[in-house]
Amino acid sequence: MHAIPDLETPAVLIDEDIVDRNIAAAQAQFSRLGVALRPHIKTHKLVRFAQKQIAAGAVGITCQKTSEAETFVEAGCRDVLITFNILGDAKLARLRRLSERATITVVADNAVVVRGLSQAFADAAAPMRVLVECDTGLARCGVQSPEAAAHLARLIAQSPGLQFAGLMTYPPPNSHERVESFMREAKAGCMASIGHCETISSGGTPSMKSVPAGTVVTEYRPGTYIYNDRSLIARGACMLADCALAVAATVVSRPTPDRAILDAGSKTLSSDLLGLTGYGLLRDYPEAVISGLSEEHGHVDLTACACKPEVGETVLIIPNHACVVTNLFDQVHIHRSGRFIETVRVDARGCVF
Amino acid sequence: MHAIPDLETPAVLIDEDIVDRNIAAAQAQFSRLGVALRPHIKTHKLVRFAQKQIAAGAVGITCQKTSEAETFVEAGCRDVLITFNILGDAKLARLRRLSERATITVVADNAVVVRGLSQAFADAAAPMRVLVECDTGLARCGVQSPEAAAHLARLIAQSPGLQFAGLMTYPPPNSHERVESFMREAKAGCMASIGHCETISSGGTPSMKSVPAGTVVTEYRPGTYIYNDRSLIARGACMLADCALAVAATVVSRPTPDRAILDAGSKTLSSDLLGLTGYGLLRDYPEAVISGLSEEHGHVDLTACACKPEVGETVLIIPNHACVVTNLFDQVHIHRSGRFIETVRVDARGCVF
Repeated sequence: MHAIPDLETPAVLIDEDIVDRNIAAAQAQFSRLGVALRPHIKTHKLVRFAQKQIAAGAVGITCQKTSEAETFVEAGCRDVLITFNILGDAKLARLRRLSERATITVVADNAVVVRGLSQAFADAAAPMRVLVECDTGLARCGVQSPEAAAHLARLIAQSPGLQFAGLMTYPPPNSHERVESFMREAKAGCMASIGHCETISSGGTPSMKSVPAGTVVTEYRPGTYIYNDRSLIARGACMLADCALAVAATVVSRPTPDRAILDAGSKTLSSDLLGLTGYGLLRDYPEAVISGLSEEHGHVDLTACACKPEVGETVLIIPNHACVVTNLFDQVHIHRSGRFIETVRVDARGCVF
Repeated sequence: MHAIPDLETPAVLIDEDIVDRNIAAAQAQFSRLGVALRPHIKTHKLVRFAQKQIAAGAVGITCQKTSEAETFVEAGCRDVLITFNILGDAKLARLRRLSERATITVVADNAVVVRGLSQAFADAAAPMRVLVECDTGLARCGVQSPEAAAHLARLIAQSPGLQFAGLMTYPPPNSHERVESFMREAKAGCMASIGHCETISSGGTPSMKSVPAGTVVTEYRPGTYIYNDRSLIARGACMLADCALAVAATVVSRPTPDRAILDAGSKTLSSDLLGLTGYGLLRDYPEAVISGLSEEHGHVDLTACACKPEVGETVLIIPNHACVVTNLFDQVHIHRSGRFIETVRVDARGCVF
């Protein structure tokens, strides 16, 4: 870290050695399982790392937003899944333009979305590929039963301009049994009425390492695994040494013996707790607790620390949630085990549309 | 809102009629009190609105970060207070350049910061103006006692390149008695040993309306009052009609009768709860609860709603915390009571350094 020239804090540092290891390990695991890997770029939002993931063997990428997909297609990505219900004339027009430049797949969990997609693609050169999103227990989007999945799949298959391409879910962590049973039953329903159900897409870094052999899932969409974070350490999904992303911050004040204030607050670390206590891990002061965040200040309780950081000292924070941190920064600093490589723009930062 | 052309969600909408009223009301209040107004731009990060605040009578602006100050000085602001301990050669060099273009004041709460500032300004054409930051109960930055404030003030007054300019605090809400007694005592200490203590700066929208007549405070730095938000409604500091900022989001899914999913998650609304239940107020469905946020999904519990929004419907959200929302968007849409005016870039978005 100290090798990064003119580093001003707060700053995001990415260790590309760890990134490379994380990409290789995930690809090896899914290659062994015979499951396609389609990493979610929401975590890094960097063309540089999407290219690495594809070079390592990923079949394509996953985006959450149309504007993210636009950024990556513009940079040359040829196969993009957008795991979001797309609605509205403006977004559908953008999706149509995007589909003329790359293989795009979207999801739908209701008939309103299917009708909108069908109207937008009825006269397109090629049909839009649509997966049925299934709720396997997260209680977010998704049809509520395998029967409802097969029903919506039929509607897609019958809709002008659309091609039923399979099923998708974002399950809660470690719910593989539920995913397997829901998706097998939904697939059987689709096979019975439509005769095909190519893709069964699941995802999530927390459950990644326990995807079972012989799974019905044909592709997996992990995102955070490329960087990892404090929430994944807490879940036992990675170790500190697997965390590629750290936020460098400066101790700007030590108002009392047990309090330090950092120049990194909620506009740097976000307020995501993800069930944890504290807003991040001070790598070199693990007993310290980031007990609160103002917008630009991190409040650190040093009560439990034998050794305490001084004013002016740079500290490294492993954030609770890497994905929201990179979205707050225009640029990140890439290094390899402390040797500075390059400062790069976060290509899809703020791509919220 | 419906008058905004090609509106894609999620989007930030700002009602400039309400902005104008909020600016005028605050200015009138502080003019009556004889207290200078120095609005904090962290909330809007827009040159357009800083200019309005200054035109209404503000003596200058407050920034939290050097990069914010650079943005506003570049746009013509001539008097900027940076309420942050500035440390490190790179930031001090930027501060020095900035001080050659505008009247800049900074704060310090410890000797390390004072020494750094003194080294950076020892050979400057004009001294850097420094306020002593005082901790009046928030337990963030700040010296811990009036005696410590006077002590640090003397160090500043004796340091080459620096000018002691007064005292500053960011108090917890509605702690006016504590602020008055701390600041009066600290001022007396400074007067006794240095002979002057021009500025006594306090701030915070929650306490704004109860600043007492005859206060020792000479300038006030509210930020959020320009937009207001759900946290300020909850504190009784404003009413819904005073909220200038809303996030437009689309209902993308209604997976169950009591669940709606919005296309606005933590990358739009932030995870700031500020002590509230739920992540924002659905203006037209006040019984709905935004019970959880994924990065790009808002999870809404409609159990208590008699009338429920449909898939495809645009809803307006009053966020818990306006300041972190504008920082997540590259642009905001300005309207006047629904009549579209202009889409503007958020000038200082992401100015975290």
